[in-house]
Amino acid sequence: MKLDVFPHILPKRFFDRMLAVAPPTLYLQKRMRAIPVLVDLEQRLRIMDRYEGYAQVLTLASPPIEALGGGDVTPDLARLANDGMAEIVARYPDRFPGFAASLPMNNPAAALAEIDRAITGLGATGVQMFSNVNGRALDGPEFQPLFARMASLRLPIWLHPARPASVADYAGETRSRYDIWWAFGWPYETTAAMTRLVFSGLFDRHPDLAIITHHMGAMLPYFEGRAAGGLDQLGSRTEDPDDLLRRRPRAVRHRHALRSREGAGVHP
Amino acid sequence: MKLDVFPHILPKRFFDRMLAVAPPTLYLQKRMRAIPVLVDLEQRLRIMDRYEGYAQVLTLASPPIEALGGGDVTPDLARLANDGMAEIVARYPDRFPGFAASLPMNNPAAALAEIDRAITGLGATGVQMFSNVNGRALDGPEFQPLFARMASLRLPIWLHPARPASVADYAGETRSRYDIWWAFGWPYETTAAMTRLVFSGLFDRHPDLAIITHHMGAMLPYFEGRAAGGLDQLGSRTEDPDDLLRRRPRAVRHRHALRSREGAGVHP
Repeated sequence: MKLDVFPHILPKRFFDRMLAVAPPTLYLQKRMRAIPVLVDLEQRLRIMDRYEGYAQVLTLASPPIEALGGGDVTPDLARLANDGMAEIVARYPDRFPGFAASLPMNNPAAALAEIDRAITGLGATGVQMFSNVNGRALDGPEFQPLFARMASLRLPIWLHPARPASVADYAGETRSRYDIWWAFGWPYETTAAMTRLVFSGLFDRHPDLAIITHHMGAMLPYFEGRAAGGLDQLGSRTEDPDDLLRRRPRAVRHRHALRSREGAGVHP
Repeated sequence: MKLDVFPHILPKRFFDRMLAVAPPTLYLQKRMRAIPVLVDLEQRLRIMDRYEGYAQVLTLASPPIEALGGGDVTPDLARLANDGMAEIVARYPDRFPGFAASLPMNNPAAALAEIDRAITGLGATGVQMFSNVNGRALDGPEFQPLFARMASLRLPIWLHPARPASVADYAGETRSRYDIWWAFGWPYETTAAMTRLVFSGLFDRHPDLAIITHHMGAMLPYFEGRAAGGLDQLGSRTEDPDDLLRRRPRAVRHRHALRSREGAGVHP
């Protein structure tokens, strides 16, 4: 079996509600409308039929739930999305053996309640978060109860990048050009979000917490040598309040100890 | 012979002048001061002695010349830096077979004159630019004569990333944390700058122009599949003024034609 763990879907009833409530300026919505399989389940199944043993763990497509409205309307939207994915999983358990629930992240109390409802009530495999919550970093205090709950449930968090075209490539410009915001900005956003989570100590507080990062881990798999050696060397010489020699989380110290023991040493 | 084409140096007289004139807030300056081999040539040579057949093409270390002062003072600083590198090359031609000249990019007319002086007069191997000029994109019209001159000289441009810690990781924050701006922001900046140069048609105007990007090409070598297939697919569905199907430069169309002919097809 080939299990695709990060395909996207927009369950029909959720999609219709999203179009009705979302701000018309939402950029990706125009693009998503032109991908029929996101909404059309029969067409999705016909394509999946071509690949023997191929199954999908479903996640909601961009935009994030919290971009669709205020904290008063997003809890209901998340429930609608999760009910829709749960229905599809119940109907085709062999094709869709699970789903990651969406959360109304701009209403952390409701998000916590939706974790419990989706996992206990709907059988979700985990939850999806985006690399920022309407611009807020995930290491903010309001989101920590959500990470703690997922750690105690021992279920993973799917991490999807988020960055709009309005994040310009250069200071003094008003929007990104040539899809740079998406093509390279998204892997960058995922990596920045994970770095913030690591160095803010998330994995020290919850050593077994699993986060599934989109796009093959984004930048770190390819830039591990740069990041590890560089942060050791430059981070130790700075007057930065985040000085990494003083603040380095246990998880990173442990990795370095392992590397030294293996004789790999530290990158120059 | 192993030729290191992107090591950095700060010739002593230039370094002293830089410390005297640079704004005290320049971030990397504090870090650079703690790397003795940047300035101490004897110590550099002692380290190089350990590696048989190892030689360096010299480039100036960050910060960019144009960050050190207004367009009235940077031309003189660039000349001082380039004279310093040329002296070292003349003294140790086997250890340092060449150098890339620095340019006062905030004074494009003086930068053009310095290209000619450094290459004809000092024997520079090429020139170094940074991924932005005090925030300005390199596809701005004021920089195009510099690219044209390098193309007509048939000599390469070294492209170094530039992003300060003051570029925050998230909206509403005042500075980047945990060196994210440097560890991942720099490869992102290099890639964004190259993308802008490609899609603005630079390589259509100058097909043989060579740009040496720092850090092993930054993101594109690892994200080529994402960028190529993704831009084809999403770029064709957008109402974006930069719509890539309409604006795609000849250089990219050519590459795609090659891929199709080789049967590689287009990424999903």
